[in-house]
Amino acid sequence: MNAPHHPAKGVHLIADLEGGAAAALSDPALIERVLRAAAEAARVHVLALNLHHFGPEQGVTGVALLAESHISIHSWPEEGVAAIDIFVCGEGADAWAALHAIEEGLAMRSAHAQAIPRLGARPHATD
Amino acid sequence: MNAPHHPAKGVHLIADLEGGAAAALSDPALIERVLRAAAEAARVHVLALNLHHFGPEQGVTGVALLAESHISIHSWPEEGVAAIDIFVCGEGADAWAALHAIEEGLAMRSAHAQAIPRLGARPHATD
Repeated sequence: MNAPHHPAKGVHLIADLEGGAAAALSDPALIERVLRAAAEAARVHVLALNLHHFGPEQGVTGVALLAESHISIHSWPEEGVAAIDIFVCGEGADAWAALHAIEEGLAMRSAHAQAIPRLGARPHATD
Repeated sequence: MNAPHHPAKGVHLIADLEGGAAAALSDPALIERVLRAAAEAARVHVLALNLHHFGPEQGVTGVALLAESHISIHSWPEEGVAAIDIFVCGEGADAWAALHAIEEGLAMRSAHAQAIPRLGARPHATD
């Protein structure tokens, strides 16, 4: 895929999610769907999607490489938690919409979320 | 690979690098070597490595999935900059060593770097 590379300036959203069901957090097919839904919500383009399942009833690591940077998830079903990062560059990408799609898709809530301006982007109001 | 999944608590290091040569920042083979060197320096285990090159003289997006979470890089050769994130869980992983390996491997310096405790990890002294 020959997607254009977006400008460097962007926002990196870091969120720790809690309250997830073990069955959801150990389901790689669900997590892939949730990553794709997050990319769609953010209006970004998936170049590749890589998943690793640590085993039955265990966690999943997933990363979507984007034309606009990446979205990652790491889940720990035994604790009901997941770590999300959403790094999107360029105009028009909505990192918070991606986070909301993940919260909804996994029926979890953010215990902590913060937006970090990257590479000279100016801080802006979040959410 | 049946690597054990590490505990959720971890540190997420976010760094913006500057002063890079365009030839280095558009070289996917070099960036793959640098990611592997970073993982080795941090004493973490690479499960998969995914790279996307946006085209000749253009940027590279690379993500190493780790047993301990992930390391990502996004480069913009036209600006001499790269965005790095290094998320490592578990005892014994050294995120700062990974960052130093990337700075050295690409002959760049961090314009800004910060360490974010994830999923209940306590903040600790950095660098």
